[in-house]
Amino acid sequence: MPRIPKERLEKYLNLQREFKEERYINLHPIQRGGVLTDAARKALTEFGDGYSTCDWCPPKAARLDAIERPPIAQFMQDLAEFLGMDVARVVTRCREAQFIAFATLGEPGDYVVVDGLAHYSTYIAAELARLKIKEVPHGGHPEFRLDLDAYAGKIEEVKRETGKLPAVVLLTHVDYLYGNLNDAMVVGKICKKYGVPFLLNAAYTAGIMPTDGKKLGADVIVSSGHKSWAASAPTGILALKEELADRVLARSKMVGDWSERKFGLKEYALLGCTVMGGPLISLMSSFPHVVERVKRWGEEVEKTIYLIEQLERIEGTQQLGIKPKQHTLTHMESDGFYKVSQTHKRRGFFLYEELKRRGIVGIQAGLTKHFKLNTYGLTKTKVERVAKAFLEIAREQGLAVK
Amino acid sequence: MPRIPKERLEKYLNLQREFKEERYINLHPIQRGGVLTDAARKALTEFGDGYSTCDWCPPKAARLDAIERPPIAQFMQDLAEFLGMDVARVVTRCREAQFIAFATLGEPGDYVVVDGLAHYSTYIAAELARLKIKEVPHGGHPEFRLDLDAYAGKIEEVKRETGKLPAVVLLTHVDYLYGNLNDAMVVGKICKKYGVPFLLNAAYTAGIMPTDGKKLGADVIVSSGHKSWAASAPTGILALKEELADRVLARSKMVGDWSERKFGLKEYALLGCTVMGGPLISLMSSFPHVVERVKRWGEEVEKTIYLIEQLERIEGTQQLGIKPKQHTLTHMESDGFYKVSQTHKRRGFFLYEELKRRGIVGIQAGLTKHFKLNTYGLTKTKVERVAKAFLEIAREQGLAVK
Repeated sequence: MPRIPKERLEKYLNLQREFKEERYINLHPIQRGGVLTDAARKALTEFGDGYSTCDWCPPKAARLDAIERPPIAQFMQDLAEFLGMDVARVVTRCREAQFIAFATLGEPGDYVVVDGLAHYSTYIAAELARLKIKEVPHGGHPEFRLDLDAYAGKIEEVKRETGKLPAVVLLTHVDYLYGNLNDAMVVGKICKKYGVPFLLNAAYTAGIMPTDGKKLGADVIVSSGHKSWAASAPTGILALKEELADRVLARSKMVGDWSERKFGLKEYALLGCTVMGGPLISLMSSFPHVVERVKRWGEEVEKTIYLIEQLERIEGTQQLGIKPKQHTLTHMESDGFYKVSQTHKRRGFFLYEELKRRGIVGIQAGLTKHFKLNTYGLTKTKVERVAKAFLEIAREQGLAVK
Repeated sequence: MPRIPKERLEKYLNLQREFKEERYINLHPIQRGGVLTDAARKALTEFGDGYSTCDWCPPKAARLDAIERPPIAQFMQDLAEFLGMDVARVVTRCREAQFIAFATLGEPGDYVVVDGLAHYSTYIAAELARLKIKEVPHGGHPEFRLDLDAYAGKIEEVKRETGKLPAVVLLTHVDYLYGNLNDAMVVGKICKKYGVPFLLNAAYTAGIMPTDGKKLGADVIVSSGHKSWAASAPTGILALKEELADRVLARSKMVGDWSERKFGLKEYALLGCTVMGGPLISLMSSFPHVVERVKRWGEEVEKTIYLIEQLERIEGTQQLGIKPKQHTLTHMESDGFYKVSQTHKRRGFFLYEELKRRGIVGIQAGLTKHFKLNTYGLTKTKVERVAKAFLEIAREQGLAVK
């Protein structure tokens, strides 16, 4: 039996997080929409044990989404309704939701058409489902705007090359790199015309801004609980139009060759039950808050635009992506801070360190020329503190501030 | 924008668990090994935010298992070492770990040889990986013993039928139905002889009893954090021998056809990063306790054997599965309680209700003839209370007690 020395084990006790919400202003681009509500944090310990949600699993219909106590079954319905969809499931990650859609809607060798700014997880979800990728191009600096009308041409291209339509068409609603918001309706209409399932990756939108699948023409919406629903990780959302539910949530057809056992209740691409316990309950507990907060999306974008205006006062600094911003995830380019980094004794790390000294974290350490940030959910006062800190650092480092 | 009425949302606030550990003795067969330690429960709130583990993600090697603060990278090594394996990853569920192994070691149409008592998740993991199943039979009532030597014949059978060895051979270390412990070394030797990867499903063993992959000859060990490692859901463990790591943890080969982006750092079958935040940290925080508790496995089995002896004093009641028990998961058969249910006004529900009145839960409501229970981690005093309750109910219902 292998033995691990005590001193190596002790480091796993009393693990602390340095960047707690009450100690720092955290601008990390992917973290803002996932900060837990108090209700979610409380629920986490109540349902910390993994199977705590399963005490009342119905014996004749043993499946997570059928549990009524706590009200998981009702939550799945409310979640679908909130997204303007018909059926919803909570899965382990947004990327798993993508994989489930790819694996059930496509056959190995089929194509998925995706936007050229899709997240890496889209590519590897396709890879695991043994599908090929065709990308819709985006424009160059500084907007990096996607050519949404080009989806039609890419669908045609797949048909021409393979004699078959793509299995799925995917659009990243807001991309991870520039935070550009895409008009999903354009792609929804194209997909409807061709009769191809339209998957909207709403990892950065559903849960923080209004996202109505019906209006957008989405057949599948995927999202991330820990990115945009004030839920613990790992939680993904998979929401479907009724028409696709039978395919994506297909039941197991496996039969034991000797035992003759069958598992016909289980949704096989989900591998049966998915996210039990704390993470699921945290998502449910934050849901009332999430339903309210999406209505205040306009205020969130205003705070971002204010911060960008302040940052752009700094010599050689501009926002990348489409202007004016329609989302809180922001990519800044700064020749000014880059110039400083060339001679500063801390090189590119000065910006991170100067911000941290002022109680601000989340900008990637070492970056100056390009850095991303997100103000979602920060109070106006905190956003003002962030603006002030950046301007102060710029002046201290001898940059001109308009 | 869809609107959900306030009164429907309110029910998601203040969700409470009825069957908390401090209120009930919970005998639920799948829950005992997952009950959190105090350290894990505390860690859950500290790292409740999903990306709280990712504050120090190394920019040049951005992957969960590379993070050193908190010590995730070190944990992956300690976890592998504890299991007598070379490489470990934490994935979302034991079933996902199985799927990852199947999808990377097999090609669609290949076979997996499994034991006839394998869990349903094994079958649907194979189904999702598009593999076929061949089952090794087990004996009948009351032992239901697996014929481990028959693995050789089944491997031969696959070779004869397909001209190819099975992609993987799987053994469920302890099955979910009778709690029989299988001698994995027997299967390990057979697999070695044929040169077929041997996957040991240790969902009910690793984390509660000593499990040394090296000694057992396992090439892959999968386990469940929320079932047997005092960790929150969803957490699965995937541990590998070095020889298979390149295949199972293969890096992405996907290339964007237009953008030319590559994602060569990402382990594609894991879909990149897996379980962040609370569940991972709960697993890490319980790890020092788990390393210690497996040494006390003998005491745990003794308590179970004591309870079975007491239950078998009841008329027409016997333990199913191999005797004496080598595991705490227990399947009881009771013609006595079944006889009572035939005339009791609460029918089969009387047993559940009488136990609950005595502060004991976890036996499936409605069952009397066959029911499962697990005493893992309960104090001797609590196990005695359970025995006393069963005997009292039997006597009250007019059954003979030896």
